[in-house]
Amino acid sequence: MDINITPVKTSKIKDIDFSNLAFGHVFTDHMLVCNYKNGAWEAPEIMPYGPLSFEPSARVFHYGQAVFEGMKAYKDEAGDLFLFRPDESVKRLNKSSERLAIPALPEEIFHKGLAELLHLENEWIKPGKGNSLYIRPFVIATEGAIAASPAQEYKFIIICSPAQAYYAGEVRVLIAEKFSRSADGGVGYAKAAGNYAAQFYPTSLAHKEGYQQIIWTDANTHEYLEEAGTMNIFFRIGDTLITAPTNDRILDGITRKSIVQLAQDEGVNMEVRDFSVKELKEAARSGALKEIFGSGTAAVVNPIKGFKHGDEVFELPEVTDSFAARFKDKLLNIQYNIEADPYGWRVKI
Amino acid sequence: MDINITPVKTSKIKDIDFSNLAFGHVFTDHMLVCNYKNGAWEAPEIMPYGPLSFEPSARVFHYGQAVFEGMKAYKDEAGDLFLFRPDESVKRLNKSSERLAIPALPEEIFHKGLAELLHLENEWIKPGKGNSLYIRPFVIATEGAIAASPAQEYKFIIICSPAQAYYAGEVRVLIAEKFSRSADGGVGYAKAAGNYAAQFYPTSLAHKEGYQQIIWTDANTHEYLEEAGTMNIFFRIGDTLITAPTNDRILDGITRKSIVQLAQDEGVNMEVRDFSVKELKEAARSGALKEIFGSGTAAVVNPIKGFKHGDEVFELPEVTDSFAARFKDKLLNIQYNIEADPYGWRVKI
Repeated sequence: MDINITPVKTSKIKDIDFSNLAFGHVFTDHMLVCNYKNGAWEAPEIMPYGPLSFEPSARVFHYGQAVFEGMKAYKDEAGDLFLFRPDESVKRLNKSSERLAIPALPEEIFHKGLAELLHLENEWIKPGKGNSLYIRPFVIATEGAIAASPAQEYKFIIICSPAQAYYAGEVRVLIAEKFSRSADGGVGYAKAAGNYAAQFYPTSLAHKEGYQQIIWTDANTHEYLEEAGTMNIFFRIGDTLITAPTNDRILDGITRKSIVQLAQDEGVNMEVRDFSVKELKEAARSGALKEIFGSGTAAVVNPIKGFKHGDEVFELPEVTDSFAARFKDKLLNIQYNIEADPYGWRVKI
Repeated sequence: MDINITPVKTSKIKDIDFSNLAFGHVFTDHMLVCNYKNGAWEAPEIMPYGPLSFEPSARVFHYGQAVFEGMKAYKDEAGDLFLFRPDESVKRLNKSSERLAIPALPEEIFHKGLAELLHLENEWIKPGKGNSLYIRPFVIATEGAIAASPAQEYKFIIICSPAQAYYAGEVRVLIAEKFSRSADGGVGYAKAAGNYAAQFYPTSLAHKEGYQQIIWTDANTHEYLEEAGTMNIFFRIGDTLITAPTNDRILDGITRKSIVQLAQDEGVNMEVRDFSVKELKEAARSGALKEIFGSGTAAVVNPIKGFKHGDEVFELPEVTDSFAARFKDKLLNIQYNIEADPYGWRVKI
């Protein structure tokens, strides 16, 4: 597979303050672009990051045919570069694409294109736990036609943004009682663009009440805890860790499944099962609820300090043996080549 | 309100075969573009239709912040130009925008901008029932930042496409039993881009079975008939016409509400109520089911010839006094200034 590379004349890296990065606002020098036309994916190109030209009738603008992935590249102290479970990302991208009637991307284009791009952006990836290069592969429907049917033309693009930690400050969450994120038989399990915009308005209402995120519940009954929209959610009751099983409403998070595996292998009582708001509130009242935390590529692990449901507000206790901290540390150590990776999750690029 | 107009040097209209138009594939000479920046909508511009430049990090590509409307302009035999209930379109656009955390568009920009654009495209609108100019106003998030939160910059765009009738051939539908279009508390009532891409895959499976569309049922039970994704749905049992009430899963269709009004005023027994698959199948078996038809701006009224649910296939009878034909004719006569409009729906531009 040939990749045509047009490098920038001058890198903009010297203008970037790496100690003060707003998430997702700064992009590296290059991007990868691969077009789908006449029933096939063409050879990818790497070119300077910058605006692209789109028909105003491009179907992505009208019908939301758009899926994405979130990944990170990590650098160890020796300067070696790693990805975390990239096979899972390309498989999920194609699973999302299938649900939105987008043609599957050959895995080779994804893997080789990404490796080539990362080597070019090597200077943008800073060593040290917490520093990373956030990678955003995505596919969008570009054909200029506003008939409500799948497009015949697409672009697969990878852009990269240097990142520090995603979440800052203490996070408290509202538990959804009226709004929903997804339906049975819908697209909630896909990383479909439309799933995210749908959360912005309910989340803005939560912000007004002083809550940073929403924990979504099942749309039918609002009785079962599902996910937080950009994170899967774990609950610790005593020394038992609980997370909802994936289904067609819940994203099959790579960080989520990695934590489930780590917890099982470390002998934690790990329960993947439906978990109700009622059970959560009873555990909070009795003192059995020790922790809630979110998991996701951007946030890695994000402790939640409190939650509100109806008129009831709960604050979580301080714990000294935090599962959130323990599994975050374990994951980061694997990602940054600090400790052994018996799983083969860490892939050197 | 000033609108800066840059007209094309040469119209491409002479290259268009108006008797052979594929829906949504041909666009007129001009488009309207209005930017939202620094907390305000700027003055709109009319410019030659053509590609626009977007950051690959524009939030519409990643998080699906995109809403649209569908409208038509009609010309009568005297050459006068009309819109159908344009007030409803701008109100619904802003209702959709609110749900996706997109700033509301001032109605004046919508109305004056559209009128100015249509006067410029006057030659593209051909008189005669069935001919129309399909109008696509839409709003997309353009800010180049991949944080999962509402954008700070948007574009409101209007593009226009000359149209003949939208649906050709006989339409048979599958009734959804597994897939869903929207959840309670979700965005189904909004004309959100992501609602459409989500239907493409299930619809492609229906195509393979020989069905052109899906009638969506409620995601909780799949027992109640809701809408067809690009159309609302009416059922005629004997001489009673039935359509589902709007809710947060069902689009408040302008054609739908116009037909409800016409039916009521013409003394048809019009029931706006939950209507179950069970009731539909019983009526089909007993012979009481006379018609099913869809309603929407593109299709106006679209008769449905048959449906499948589970393993059961039903074919509808031929009727001589079709409600579908009657209300389509009535609507077209109002739209094309052929008969009186006691409702004030027809607006001369």
